[in-house]
Amino acid sequence: MTDGERQLIDAARERLGPKAVVTDPSEIEPWATDWRGRVHGATPAILSPASTEEVAEIVRLAAELRVPLVPQGGNTGMAAGATPPADGSALLLSMRRMNRIRSISAENRLGVAEAGVVLATLHNAAHEVGMRFPLTLGARGSCTIGGLTSTNAGGTQVLKFGTMRSLVAGVEAVLPDGSVHSGLSGLKKDNRGYSLDQLLIGAEGTLGVITAVALRLVPAVAARAVAWAAVDSPERALDLLRFLEARTTSVEGFELVPQDSLHLVLKHIPGTRAPLSGEHKWHVLVEATTADVDQDVGAEIERLLGAALQQGIIGDAVLAANEAQAEAFWKLRDTISEAERAEGQTLAHDISVAVADMPRFIVEASTAVERRFPGVVASGFGHLGDGNIHFHVRAAAHAAPDWYEREGKEITRFVDDLVTAAGGSISAEHGIGQLKRDEFARLAPAGRIHALRAIKQALDPLGIMNPGKLAP
Amino acid sequence: MTDGERQLIDAARERLGPKAVVTDPSEIEPWATDWRGRVHGATPAILSPASTEEVAEIVRLAAELRVPLVPQGGNTGMAAGATPPADGSALLLSMRRMNRIRSISAENRLGVAEAGVVLATLHNAAHEVGMRFPLTLGARGSCTIGGLTSTNAGGTQVLKFGTMRSLVAGVEAVLPDGSVHSGLSGLKKDNRGYSLDQLLIGAEGTLGVITAVALRLVPAVAARAVAWAAVDSPERALDLLRFLEARTTSVEGFELVPQDSLHLVLKHIPGTRAPLSGEHKWHVLVEATTADVDQDVGAEIERLLGAALQQGIIGDAVLAANEAQAEAFWKLRDTISEAERAEGQTLAHDISVAVADMPRFIVEASTAVERRFPGVVASGFGHLGDGNIHFHVRAAAHAAPDWYEREGKEITRFVDDLVTAAGGSISAEHGIGQLKRDEFARLAPAGRIHALRAIKQALDPLGIMNPGKLAP
Repeated sequence: MTDGERQLIDAARERLGPKAVVTDPSEIEPWATDWRGRVHGATPAILSPASTEEVAEIVRLAAELRVPLVPQGGNTGMAAGATPPADGSALLLSMRRMNRIRSISAENRLGVAEAGVVLATLHNAAHEVGMRFPLTLGARGSCTIGGLTSTNAGGTQVLKFGTMRSLVAGVEAVLPDGSVHSGLSGLKKDNRGYSLDQLLIGAEGTLGVITAVALRLVPAVAARAVAWAAVDSPERALDLLRFLEARTTSVEGFELVPQDSLHLVLKHIPGTRAPLSGEHKWHVLVEATTADVDQDVGAEIERLLGAALQQGIIGDAVLAANEAQAEAFWKLRDTISEAERAEGQTLAHDISVAVADMPRFIVEASTAVERRFPGVVASGFGHLGDGNIHFHVRAAAHAAPDWYEREGKEITRFVDDLVTAAGGSISAEHGIGQLKRDEFARLAPAGRIHALRAIKQALDPLGIMNPGKLAP
Repeated sequence: MTDGERQLIDAARERLGPKAVVTDPSEIEPWATDWRGRVHGATPAILSPASTEEVAEIVRLAAELRVPLVPQGGNTGMAAGATPPADGSALLLSMRRMNRIRSISAENRLGVAEAGVVLATLHNAAHEVGMRFPLTLGARGSCTIGGLTSTNAGGTQVLKFGTMRSLVAGVEAVLPDGSVHSGLSGLKKDNRGYSLDQLLIGAEGTLGVITAVALRLVPAVAARAVAWAAVDSPERALDLLRFLEARTTSVEGFELVPQDSLHLVLKHIPGTRAPLSGEHKWHVLVEATTADVDQDVGAEIERLLGAALQQGIIGDAVLAANEAQAEAFWKLRDTISEAERAEGQTLAHDISVAVADMPRFIVEASTAVERRFPGVVASGFGHLGDGNIHFHVRAAAHAAPDWYEREGKEITRFVDDLVTAAGGSISAEHGIGQLKRDEFARLAPAGRIHALRAIKQALDPLGIMNPGKLAP
């Protein structure tokens, strides 16, 4: 522990109270490790301010004492962006005590949540006023609004409502100099200079600490319909999406599932069964919703899938008969990663290309990877309508236990090169964090890296905000 | 002319060709004056590159020679953001020759337009592929995509589709170091660090030159309905909007018009007549559209207005019987500023507060201004649903001809103080440019000004991009 850290910890105890400072190593450990357990950091303390003013005080002190801070929400990030450096040179700034929903209004279609509010809590609060916050993802029971905003999170409803960037109406944050940026006024139009709100969204805590966020709400779901369809290829899956989008605005989930992934789920996840009989090469999960109680969205989707079947776009389809079956369909999609882990070692890549290019990319990239690394199985599943799939590479059946460590890096470089050649992104929704920093530095244009570094240096000249993340 | 300017002009003649360099003072003059004729700049030359590579070359040379550049599109800005300094110390960089629509696709719902494409040209191109670019404003025949993006323009359809920030899918720009930022890949998800796209939107050309923009398209309008309704107060007008929004998603224009403004239009604009008989205190223009050929949006709006009448929300209403009448209704709204000019001197303020606060703000601010400056007439009209109105103050009937110059600044300060006290923005959609710089500096929090200056300094350390604009 440095002298600065010791002084900051003492000052925090005094100003925030003893309960707001955790120094017991066993209590710290789970928060100093990323949630996939791959990156192990270390820190002498976790500080937990309970108000924006307390955050500002801590940041001002940290600047004065030159002690870096690592902001953290639910610690569910996929790129170790909230994991402190391994040398213990930074303190964790936990936002979990800032967990108030400051306001929520159906009339204004806005809610203001503090950074530590858990996504599921916000979902419930919106539901209680007859509205919905239309972004969700697997970690909804743990991830926080601050983390979701700082990583510009996506999820399974992006198709209709966009990522966090589209849903954030304003950001309150403590900047690295300890000043408070107040963007919560809920103005729909405000052209007073560069958008600090937009700069902070997706900045992974490297330009300041987000303390609260104004969020757009949409009318609550009156009814949903979930369907499962079989298609011959990713190209046909995209045809189906275009077909539906030209005829309805109710589709808000469209997930591609290869037969191989479904097969693993059926093999490893208890209580699962295939929605359709027979073998099919590819599958699509379609979710449609309506906020209109008079609209029969199930009948609409059934009719449209019938028409798509007649036109030869799909090979077969079934509508979930009830909520239990709808949940069962979603479970097939949501447990793919778990089933892969049960099967063996898997390398995950969260990538995007232009929507129109994705069908070809999936097929060509899988072929290229399997040819270059004999024995592995490559496949893509997920958010086809967003041009964003999880491109996973599984080890060969009898791969060595250290396959991931030994070959992972080379395979990832190969995949990232394919993505870059296709004009895509090596981080569609997970961010850069620590895990993608080297690849980002290798593949990004020099001008972009230069610009990001200049912005970081301008706003955080002392380098106290989340060191070692994002900008290479 | 400085040596640097002379060298840059010579080099531009050689690289871009003689036609791309204008030095004739009479040809320069209209572009060196802002379109409202209030700010007169000067420059020895206008340079007109025709490609991104040419822009990059000019910017690199300008950096080398330390010659500032003022990017300009259609020169229709409201804050003199594209007007060069009066001392001739900068060259105009006209983007009007970069006027290609690089691609447009109904299937991908995307168009890529170069910075100099005129908005009306894009409207037509979208229409030809059965789509629509859903942002429009009075200057549509002159304003350009680059300027619209650089000012985060709004307009009369923001209610449903948002400002440019919501409609831009990616930006290509030449940064001040001459490097090209390429954000046109059309990725729906891309979390590779700070969003330079979002930073450039609304930056008024102070952080780089936008050369092309990827834009979101929506399905073409199949039918529209335009209605005129009378209400007792702005509060009732907002009630009407809430009433409609709870029952339909088709409303995309909702403009508030005070009786006083309508009266001036009827008095000064030939061929206009009041849509409703009798005197009413306030009016609302409602536009609803649908992309669905089977939807009778006129009948829907008529039914909803009927219900609003029964509930006492509105006092009267009429649906435009045909397109000519719809245009006539819009003309009543669009000619308010013109009618005010015909009546006498007018001070315009483009301001916003939270939507829910706007009705009270209009009434209270008008009263406060009229009390503080006896004889003037204050009123607010425009985009009530966006919390954005044009708050205009008209001179007293027999005001001196120099009223605007003599009293304008004090009145504007008074209005801006009211807006700031209400948590609003002194620039809702027009930007800061030159005209609002002093007020922005006076009213913005110190931390914000510091952050904007730091970003400007970081990305444009030589100060060559649009000097004297935006960041105070």
